Amino acid sequence: MIDFQYTKPGFNILRAAHAEYVVTDLHRAHDFYVDVLGFVVTLETPDALYLRGYEERLHHSLKLTRGASPHIGHLAYRVESNADLDLLFVHFGGIGLEPKWLDNEEPGQGRALRVLDPVGFPIEFFCEMAQVESLLQRYDLHRGAEVLRLDHFNLHVPDCAAAFEYYKSLGFRCSEYTSTDGDDERLWAAWMFRKPDVHDVALMNGKGPRLHHTGWWVGDPVSVLRTCDRLAALGHAGAIERGPGRHGLSNAFFLYLRDPDGHRIELYTNDYYTGDPDLEPLRWSVNDPMRGTFWGHAAPESWFEESSVVADGNGGIVELREESLKERPQTVI
Amino acid sequence: MIDFQYTKPGFNILRAAHAEYVVTDLHRAHDFYVDVLGFVVTLETPDALYLRGYEERLHHSLKLTRGASPHIGHLAYRVESNADLDLLFVHFGGIGLEPKWLDNEEPGQGRALRVLDPVGFPIEFFCEMAQVESLLQRYDLHRGAEVLRLDHFNLHVPDCAAAFEYYKSLGFRCSEYTSTDGDDERLWAAWMFRKPDVHDVALMNGKGPRLHHTGWWVGDPVSVLRTCDRLAALGHAGAIERGPGRHGLSNAFFLYLRDPDGHRIELYTNDYYTGDPDLEPLRWSVNDPMRGTFWGHAAPESWFEESSVVADGNGGIVELREESLKERPQTVI
Amino acid sequence: MIDFQYTKPGFNILRAAHAEYVVTDLHRAHDFYVDVLGFVVTLETPDALYLRGYEERLHHSLKLTRGASPHIGHLAYRVESNADLDLLFVHFGGIGLEPKWLDNEEPGQGRALRVLDPVGFPIEFFCEMAQVESLLQRYDLHRGAEVLRLDHFNLHVPDCAAAFEYYKSLGFRCSEYTSTDGDDERLWAAWMFRKPDVHDVALMNGKGPRLHHTGWWVGDPVSVLRTCDRLAALGHAGAIERGPGRHGLSNAFFLYLRDPDGHRIELYTNDYYTGDPDLEPLRWSVNDPMRGTFWGHAAPESWFEESSVVADGNGGIVELREESLKERPQTVI
Amino acid sequence: MIDFQYTKPGFNILRAAHAEYVVTDLHRAHDFYVDVLGFVVTLETPDALYLRGYEERLHHSLKLTRGASPHIGHLAYRVESNADLDLLFVHFGGIGLEPKWLDNEEPGQGRALRVLDPVGFPIEFFCEMAQVESLLQRYDLHRGAEVLRLDHFNLHVPDCAAAFEYYKSLGFRCSEYTSTDGDDERLWAAWMFRKPDVHDVALMNGKGPRLHHTGWWVGDPVSVLRTCDRLAALGHAGAIERGPGRHGLSNAFFLYLRDPDGHRIELYTNDYYTGDPDLEPLRWSVNDPMRGTFWGHAAPESWFEESSVVADGNGGIVELREESLKERPQTVI
Repeated sequence: MIDFQYTKPGFNILRAAHAEYVVTDLHRAHDFYVDVLGFVVTLETPDALYLRGYEERLHHSLKLTRGASPHIGHLAYRVESNADLDLLFVHFGGIGLEPKWLDNEEPGQGRALRVLDPVGFPIEFFCEMAQVESLLQRYDLHRGAEVLRLDHFNLHVPDCAAAFEYYKSLGFRCSEYTSTDGDDERLWAAWMFRKPDVHDVALMNGKGPRLHHTGWWVGDPVSVLRTCDRLAALGHAGAIERGPGRHGLSNAFFLYLRDPDGHRIELYTNDYYTGDPDLEPLRWSVNDPMRGTFWGHAAPESWFEESSVVADGNGGIVELREESLKERPQTVI
Repeated sequence: MIDFQYTKPGFNILRAAHAEYVVTDLHRAHDFYVDVLGFVVTLETPDALYLRGYEERLHHSLKLTRGASPHIGHLAYRVESNADLDLLFVHFGGIGLEPKWLDNEEPGQGRALRVLDPVGFPIEFFCEMAQVESLLQRYDLHRGAEVLRLDHFNLHVPDCAAAFEYYKSLGFRCSEYTSTDGDDERLWAAWMFRKPDVHDVALMNGKGPRLHHTGWWVGDPVSVLRTCDRLAALGHAGAIERGPGRHGLSNAFFLYLRDPDGHRIELYTNDYYTGDPDLEPLRWSVNDPMRGTFWGHAAPESWFEESSVVADGNGGIVELREESLKERPQTVI
Repeated sequence: MIDFQYTKPGFNILRAAHAEYVVTDLHRAHDFYVDVLGFVVTLETPDALYLRGYEERLHHSLKLTRGASPHIGHLAYRVESNADLDLLFVHFGGIGLEPKWLDNEEPGQGRALRVLDPVGFPIEFFCEMAQVESLLQRYDLHRGAEVLRLDHFNLHVPDCAAAFEYYKSLGFRCSEYTSTDGDDERLWAAWMFRKPDVHDVALMNGKGPRLHHTGWWVGDPVSVLRTCDRLAALGHAGAIERGPGRHGLSNAFFLYLRDPDGHRIELYTNDYYTGDPDLEPLRWSVNDPMRGTFWGHAAPESWFEESSVVADGNGGIVELREESLKERPQTVI
Repeated sequence: MIDFQYTKPGFNILRAAHAEYVVTDLHRAHDFYVDVLGFVVTLETPDALYLRGYEERLHHSLKLTRGASPHIGHLAYRVESNADLDLLFVHFGGIGLEPKWLDNEEPGQGRALRVLDPVGFPIEFFCEMAQVESLLQRYDLHRGAEVLRLDHFNLHVPDCAAAFEYYKSLGFRCSEYTSTDGDDERLWAAWMFRKPDVHDVALMNGKGPRLHHTGWWVGDPVSVLRTCDRLAALGHAGAIERGPGRHGLSNAFFLYLRDPDGHRIELYTNDYYTGDPDLEPLRWSVNDPMRGTFWGHAAPESWFEESSVVADGNGGIVELREESLKERPQTVI
């Protein structure tokens, strides 16, 4: 039995807010994210690019950092107030973690703490960030994938049930989940949210800790089709890994892309409102072929196996553990 | 100067939840809302229809009640818990209003209170409602306007500044607003939200209290175009009052329809996330022609002048007061 | 009774092929057609711009010529072979017109003749034109209105019945038409084609000869909506005269724009195949409100009254005659 | 060297007009084509269904016939006049074929002849067919795949070069083709048309004669996505064999479906005008991965291998021959 009892912690995490992708060739990454996909550049330094979607009013939602090998620098959630940061610092210390205050590490960002969380990810929490202009109605500037905003993180976790309990303890709720069939039901994946749509973070059974992808909101399915046409016309059809298609789980219309370093992003639209407290999580059997692609298409092997390793906060990479469940969603066609 | 300081009341209003339209011919209303527009019927009684959108999991978001003259029976907000209802009851009593507990008045609904609020509207608050099946992925059933869920109420209020203060006191924040130009800036309209999109309620300067419209979320602009084609094919082109078009304010792609009793609904999509606490409200001048329709189209006279009167809770209609500001948004072709 | 008996002339006119708009400020026209609307530039000279849509493989479909006052230089149809040009020359002489051979007047174009036709328009016929690259799949380059190709001309003609007979004599057939009600049915407008879609030329009762608009094929209705968003974002919302909407007549999804000189263009998509010889023309009553806009919207006064005057081929403008029918299509909201 | 010199035969074939699919369970086929895909029923008899798209004005474009094993009964082209039928009859006799006049075999159809052509297909030619109402603007009735009209046939032919010469002799021209690389260029596939879009018939190297699919025009890519959603919601996701996607060749946005008997249909939109006589055929290398799917997706094995066998006109099935070229288009991902 999966326990969907939620707690209300004292702090208030608002939403998934930004990710740091460490890339080996910043020029090549600029070409992909800015020139091809049309991400908006807020700031460019010799060692990093600070990007955002057309709708976003905070300084950045994607940081690309030059580095020796591809990995994830950190993932950041925004909290409601600076007081929430203090509460989180105390909370993490209390459960045996080692949160650290950052010292103006990211341009435009106020106080922030980082912690290597029990799931194994380098997570940042911050409240204040410099405001920039929304370009939502600057339709003349919209290009490429026409990304509007960051929507969610998707994580490969070795122990989904444990990660689920951890995120519940931070106040996240569950909109949909996948579990094994039979008497011994076990959680295979969970979609968890703070802002009231399907998720801020998805937890998927897999070798980890690794970031499977970041998900980016686009306006409608037509935007996704146009992105495919543009990618192909520019010789980047190879970046398309999966889709376009409709997810059963979340109902999202999706497209998965791989960047030149192999990091994955998802273009995502068409999910739904989840803010009612009595929302019952939707269950999908790990064996339901419509769970992944509602239309029945199989996902490629790479989509299940490949993900981005994550920084340990001390200059290294967090060691991988094998997934605890060996079931894989059934694929058809 | 408009004051955007917010307070946090003790109760937690979640969102706009349902409306009651009193119609003079229930069969005709059934034809329009169910047969033509494709609203889902949860319950049909001799005197009322309880409808919802394809995504919704609560019993109803639109109640159509048979009555002698067209008006609005009530507008309902959902709260997080039953304790919030008690707090609201006390709160309203404390500011001199006369809240009343309902006695199982609406099928499927738990405890509820109603109050004629200071703005002059019959407002209901409830927490519990029977859950029904989401038909979001029953694409085979989607018809008509393919309405997914209720999004917001839009009110004609005689004193927008006063209504704005009242809604702030309930914990609503402001995403966008319209004000007069010049030294003596006065609030002409305000878009206010609890759930983090552009609004749960819009307040527009106008003779009132009257409901201007309820807004219903649809999946994308193409759904709106298809609705126009279907309405016209069925001989209901006359129901189209304004649009399709893009609002400057809210960025929504919209269509306004009038039902056979003259009540107005809006099909609405493409707004944006507003959940960050430092979100700065966007100002539009009452004289900016792109404010109403981003593409510059004028709204028809009827759109500015006609609205639905509201019940006073004692079998009568709330008396109308003239709007306090005589400016009207400039319209151009 | 309208006579839909067709003749097969000896020559073969293929389709509407290009138009020449004389504009008073070529820089301003470049800004509108190229920078804003995204027409492809094939050739730019000090006095003219030669433009085409993304799909087109001929040198130009729109010529913008610098001139002292806005008017239409000529409209051109493509024929199948050079022999057709000779046959047309003889044909026009035979009916008392004065066709003239051009002397390499347009870059990239082979032999061509011009004639001031009985309807009063300066019409060119040509067969050969230089081929250029189709940019249909260069989705990375598609911008602005994403115009794919020229579709048709729409003419204001004082005597629609006479113009109809003239175009029938050239081998054009009729897909749809508008006529007056009552015993004395009179032709108010006719949509006539050589290529098998709804039209290459439309004839509308009105003061003329004037060009009402040229129509340009776009990929789908979403492209039209995006054009509105882009125009508005660039401060060109004022160029939108009518639409977006669905025509009853032709079923097209449309948008009408006015260029800085007042010339009109239509973005047009979603018509249908007409190539079967037994296709029966569809009749619309001049009083049918769904004829113009299927959704019931009225067209603005300017759309009925304003059009571009045409060159007489001798440095002057063809004198206008009043329309023969005073009926105007009923308009409703 | 491939020879693109065309001849003008004395007869005039207009377009691909209808197909006869022999199915083993007519009730099941009714469910698929009518209830799920929304084809319009013109006539239903105990042994056959006569279907059409929403735009079509002829009696039928798809005949489903009850039979013992799945195969193709015939494919029909429409000609301009009954005189063309006589000319074709003489023509076929002159090249050693055995054309036969039909005796009112198909309801609503006038004189018709059938011939087992040199490519091995049972082809019908007819001119007259009963007219029925176009439902193009009956948007209230549009359902399922919202098919508007038949667009083309696609054939698996053992000898593509020979089939290409045969279709040229009937007056078909070539819009695009695939050929092998290297000095000994050989034709692998050809898209050939009479009506001026990309094709009425495609010839693909493969074991044959077999019908690969019939292609059906839909209004836009969004219609295709909606079809996928509806199919999946009805439990028919398994019918989706390939796509949705963009073809490199033809630029079409496509979806391939398999009916319960394994017959294949394509939903097809977004191709382009080909009616100019100097249109140069576009070449694609058989090894170009963007040829099949512009976005780089591989087609499934079944799409290359499986097709519908065809009737020999004498109660049997035409014997299959192996394809002459062993190259298969390179597939990626």
